[in-house]
Amino acid sequence: MTSTISFTKGHGTGNDFVIVPDPDGALDLSATQVAALCDRHFGIGGDGMLRVVRSTATSAGADAAAAGAEWFMDYRNADGSIAEMCGNGIRVFLHYLLQTGLAQLPDGDEIVIGTRNGPLRMTRSDLGYEVDLGAFRIESGDVLVRARGLDVPRPGLGVDVGNPHVVVALSTAEELAGLDLTAIPILDPEPAAGANVEFVVPSDPLVVDGVGRVRMRVFERGVGETLSCGTGVCATALAVRDWAGASAPDNWRVDVPGGTLGVRIVGDHVLLSGPAQLVFSGEIALA
Amino acid sequence: MTSTISFTKGHGTGNDFVIVPDPDGALDLSATQVAALCDRHFGIGGDGMLRVVRSTATSAGADAAAAGAEWFMDYRNADGSIAEMCGNGIRVFLHYLLQTGLAQLPDGDEIVIGTRNGPLRMTRSDLGYEVDLGAFRIESGDVLVRARGLDVPRPGLGVDVGNPHVVVALSTAEELAGLDLTAIPILDPEPAAGANVEFVVPSDPLVVDGVGRVRMRVFERGVGETLSCGTGVCATALAVRDWAGASAPDNWRVDVPGGTLGVRIVGDHVLLSGPAQLVFSGEIALA
Repeated sequence: MTSTISFTKGHGTGNDFVIVPDPDGALDLSATQVAALCDRHFGIGGDGMLRVVRSTATSAGADAAAAGAEWFMDYRNADGSIAEMCGNGIRVFLHYLLQTGLAQLPDGDEIVIGTRNGPLRMTRSDLGYEVDLGAFRIESGDVLVRARGLDVPRPGLGVDVGNPHVVVALSTAEELAGLDLTAIPILDPEPAAGANVEFVVPSDPLVVDGVGRVRMRVFERGVGETLSCGTGVCATALAVRDWAGASAPDNWRVDVPGGTLGVRIVGDHVLLSGPAQLVFSGEIALA
Repeated sequence: MTSTISFTKGHGTGNDFVIVPDPDGALDLSATQVAALCDRHFGIGGDGMLRVVRSTATSAGADAAAAGAEWFMDYRNADGSIAEMCGNGIRVFLHYLLQTGLAQLPDGDEIVIGTRNGPLRMTRSDLGYEVDLGAFRIESGDVLVRARGLDVPRPGLGVDVGNPHVVVALSTAEELAGLDLTAIPILDPEPAAGANVEFVVPSDPLVVDGVGRVRMRVFERGVGETLSCGTGVCATALAVRDWAGASAPDNWRVDVPGGTLGVRIVGDHVLLSGPAQLVFSGEIALA
């Protein structure tokens, strides 16, 4: 049987999502159906899907409901597989809730959004919205990174922000632009679960008006180069802050190919902020 | 001023298009606006845009109107530039006209569609729709083609189907699958206006039930590898037919990554046939 669903397309710094409203948890989308919706040539196209469902209407939302989160973000990768979280997706998710009137968020207030990574706190911010991604961890020991376009292997720093990253410092914007990220970077040692790899160029001067500035490109494991990676931006700020030493600031701006994101470090938590946009709405028949 | 337009998304063998109805020629879309609509992360996404306009409502449609074509396909590349024709796009264009009731096409009848390449005749066919792309020309003299994944340069045959192509025969499906088309193939001599490059593997046996069969991948100039290229499919059939000699058939089936297309050669004309699908409709604010 074919049924037709409504959807909205949105993005945060070019990381784009098919948003499917399903407040009452009536939709049971298979991985194949999600992959078809996210296919850029045969479907709507997106880096992933965000199903908008009440926490009380899905078994995955029990913790979220207990934490007072009315809404649960059921995030899926473009291949239909389940993912725990998406740092850019959750801003688009919140923006959709506010634009459609499903939720309200007065300035200065916070809202809790349910995710498979637990309930996350969000606020409005100067860049758009900010989400507290929780605790981070800087790994010990360098990883050697080989990439097409780099003359020699470079040392990378492991950073865990709920998912694993390796951050590599380059010298110049030209070196960053000259990277060929159509080929997967080789890590030595290779982390057991793989890692996203961020190539970063700190600004000169590094800190302007108390805010650290960095430019980055990212290779996401299983995907390839993307316009933006929210957790990768956090890992980038954390790594450069680590390298810069005790005097480094807690506020950062990271320029990615898709735009600019903000990172704040508060104690052992990292917070990501940035814009979110809704692009269009439509209807599509489910296969 | 921001205005909102309606659109439909469609594809033919994975070659996908944003279809914008504008019967009365009221829309004056800039190249920047078209590029924004076709952007896969920040817009709707597509290989190009098809504006649906009456031939009498656009200056470009004067020849089409004189030839009895009610509708003119204003085709734009994804970067907003004007293109003359698109072999997959015109099937999607016709399918849209028929599905929305803007035109009728009884079985066995033909319809004329206006394009910047002149008015083109179309019919229904077993694969979906067929379009007469007009006269073709086989070039003399080989072109040497280098590509990543090929051990040695291979000779290619130049074929002009309204736009220039170079067709290269490979030995096996494995060799075809092993090509890395993230890098641009190098042509020697390089045609003045560049060329699309088709890598093809004839089936064994070549002809089944009077129909020649070929598999192909294509690198489109200025774009990269695509799922399908209508004129490239025609060039492929024409080249393999040329290599096969006097006994070769006039009917061909070409498998591309996005599906299967048909080619018929009638005298000095080449006709392309294949499917067309509409995927979803929506509304979007013009920037």
